[in-house]
Amino acid sequence: MTDTRFFVLREFPSGLPPLNLFVLREATLPDLALNEVRIRNRWLSVDPYMRGRMSGITTYVEPYALDKPMSGGAVGEVIASRHPHFQHGDRVRHMAGWRDVAQLPGDEVEPLPQFDVPEQAYLGVLGMPGMTAWTGLNLVADLQPGQRVLVSAAAGAVGSLAVQLAKAANCHVVGVAGSQAKCDWLESMGVKALNYRGKDVDALTRSLRKASPDRYDIYYENVGGPLLEAALSNLRDHARIAICGMIDRYNDTGPAGGPGNLNQLLFRKARMEGFIVAEHWDHYQTFLQQIAPDVEREAIHYRETIVEGLERMPEAFLKLFSGDNEGKMLVRLP
Amino acid sequence: MTDTRFFVLREFPSGLPPLNLFVLREATLPDLALNEVRIRNRWLSVDPYMRGRMSGITTYVEPYALDKPMSGGAVGEVIASRHPHFQHGDRVRHMAGWRDVAQLPGDEVEPLPQFDVPEQAYLGVLGMPGMTAWTGLNLVADLQPGQRVLVSAAAGAVGSLAVQLAKAANCHVVGVAGSQAKCDWLESMGVKALNYRGKDVDALTRSLRKASPDRYDIYYENVGGPLLEAALSNLRDHARIAICGMIDRYNDTGPAGGPGNLNQLLFRKARMEGFIVAEHWDHYQTFLQQIAPDVEREAIHYRETIVEGLERMPEAFLKLFSGDNEGKMLVRLP
Repeated sequence: MTDTRFFVLREFPSGLPPLNLFVLREATLPDLALNEVRIRNRWLSVDPYMRGRMSGITTYVEPYALDKPMSGGAVGEVIASRHPHFQHGDRVRHMAGWRDVAQLPGDEVEPLPQFDVPEQAYLGVLGMPGMTAWTGLNLVADLQPGQRVLVSAAAGAVGSLAVQLAKAANCHVVGVAGSQAKCDWLESMGVKALNYRGKDVDALTRSLRKASPDRYDIYYENVGGPLLEAALSNLRDHARIAICGMIDRYNDTGPAGGPGNLNQLLFRKARMEGFIVAEHWDHYQTFLQQIAPDVEREAIHYRETIVEGLERMPEAFLKLFSGDNEGKMLVRLP
Repeated sequence: MTDTRFFVLREFPSGLPPLNLFVLREATLPDLALNEVRIRNRWLSVDPYMRGRMSGITTYVEPYALDKPMSGGAVGEVIASRHPHFQHGDRVRHMAGWRDVAQLPGDEVEPLPQFDVPEQAYLGVLGMPGMTAWTGLNLVADLQPGQRVLVSAAAGAVGSLAVQLAKAANCHVVGVAGSQAKCDWLESMGVKALNYRGKDVDALTRSLRKASPDRYDIYYENVGGPLLEAALSNLRDHARIAICGMIDRYNDTGPAGGPGNLNQLLFRKARMEGFIVAEHWDHYQTFLQQIAPDVEREAIHYRETIVEGLERMPEAFLKLFSGDNEGKMLVRLP
C-alpha cells in the first residue's frame, strides 16, 4: 500500500492566485497496472507557464482540471515498475509533478541523460527552461555572432541561459533584472545588467539605449509591459523579438493597454514571434549535445532557488511572480 | 527655356497636414546636362508612406527637406534627353513626382514595361502598391493555398490586389473597408467584406470571427489601431501578420495606446513582421511576369481615383487619410 500526496486546484483564480487555492490531498495508489511505473519524486518544477493552465481556458497548454491532481515537470527515482524499460532505482523525468509519489504509464517517462550534472539540472538549465532559451535564440530569433542581444528576466531560469548563449556567440548582451543581486550575478558573467525597478517607459527606453547605443538585433522577451515598449523603441533594422513569455500580464484581471509604438516593427522591418518550446522538442538532443558538456565543465553557470518540502510548493510557485527566485525555482522532496 | 512647377513643404506638420503646408513653386529648368533627361509627367502618385517623409525624422524613408521639391512616383514622357538609353517620346517611370516637368539623371529613370495596360497601372496595380501587396503576402506572410486571409484597407491600392492574390490562391478572404460602396466592390470579387465604421474593438472582434469562424492564418495589416487588436484575437496557430502600414497612426500628434492582447502572439505561436517593399525590389520582375498577364486580360481588377491637375495634388494626398479613394489615388496632368 503506497500513499501519494498531491495538489489540486480548488477553483480558477482571478489575478494572483491566493495560497489557499492549492489544496494538498492524500490518496492510496492502486496496484501497478501492466506497463506502469511508480516514482518517488525528488525534484518538482514550478514554472511561470503554469499560471496559464489555471485559467480554465486553453491558452497554449491544456488547462488544469479543478479538483484533479496538478501536473508539471519532475525528476525522481523508480520505486516499482511493470514496464520493460524501467526498473527499481532508475532516475527519470516526467510530467506528473506537484506530488510526492507518481504512478503513470512508462511511455510517459524518460530516463535521465547520462551527463555528469546534478539530476535537477534536467528541470532547469538542461531541461525545459534551458531548451526554451536555446530555441528562442536559435530557432526563433536567428542568433548571429557579434549581434546586440537584449534579454528580460535575465537572471531567471530561461534568461540566465539565454544571456550566456548569446555571450558565447560573442554578442553584446544586455540583461534586465529586478534586483541588485541579480544584476551583480549577470555582470559577473560579462553581461551588461540593468535593474528595471522604479523605471517607467521613458527611463527604460533611455537606459536600454545607454546600455547599447547601437540598439538591439534581438530581444528575448519574457516579460511584456513597459519593457517591451522600451525595447521596441530600441530596435535595429531587421531585429527579431522572440516572445517566450509575458509574465507581466499573467495575473492581470482585466484588459490593459499595450505598447503604442508597434509602428517600430514597420520602421525597423522587424519581426516579433511567439513560440512554445514543446513544438520544437525534436531538437532537444541537439540542444543537449551542444550545452550539456559546457554545463559539466562549468563553462555555463546556473543558479537554483530551492524550496524544501511538498507543502511549500504553492509558495514556491507564487514567488515566480514577485521575482524572488534567482535562476531555476525548484521544490526538493526528502 | 522650360519651366517646371513643383510642390515644396513649408514646414513639418503635426497631425493631419493642412492644405496650406504644400506650396506650389515655379522655376526655369537649367539646360540639360550630359546623361540627364527631361520628362513631362502625365501621372503623379500619392501614397500613405509620404506622410512618414513629412516628419523631419527618418522613419524608413528619407524625410522631405523643407522648401525643396518634393518627390514621389511618376509616369511621363521624355521630352529631351542627353542620356544614351532614352529618346524623345519614351514612356518612363521615376521618382521625381509632385511636379509637372522633371529633369534628372537617366540612370534614375526606367522605361515602362511593355504590357498592354494603361500606363498609370505602373504606379498602381503593377507598380509599388501592387508589388507591396505581392511581397507582403508571398515573401513576408508565406501565403499558402486554402488558408484564411484577412486584409485591412482592402479596397485601397495595396489591399485590393492583396485580396485578389489571396482569392487566386483559393483562400477564404475577408476584406475590411470603410464604406458600403467599397464593400460592394469587394463582394463582387468574391471577398467577404466587412465595414469597420462605427465598430469598437469588441464589435470588430465579433465581426471578424463571424466572417471566418475558423479565424485567420494571415492578417495583411495596413491600418493598425482597433482592427489590429481585433485581428490578434482571431489568429489561428502559426498565423502571420504582415505589417505593410499603420495608416491609423500616421497623423497622431501624441502617444496612443497599443493592443493589450499581444500575448495572443504567444498563445498562437504567431509572427508579426514589418516590411518595406524597397528591400524586396529585386523580385519586381518576378512579380511583373506573374501578375501583368492577368491584368492585361482583366482577370485582376483594379480601380483608380483620379484627381485632375497639379494644383489639386495636396488635396488628393489628404484624401488618403479620410479613405475617400477607391483603389489607387492618382493625379493626372494635362
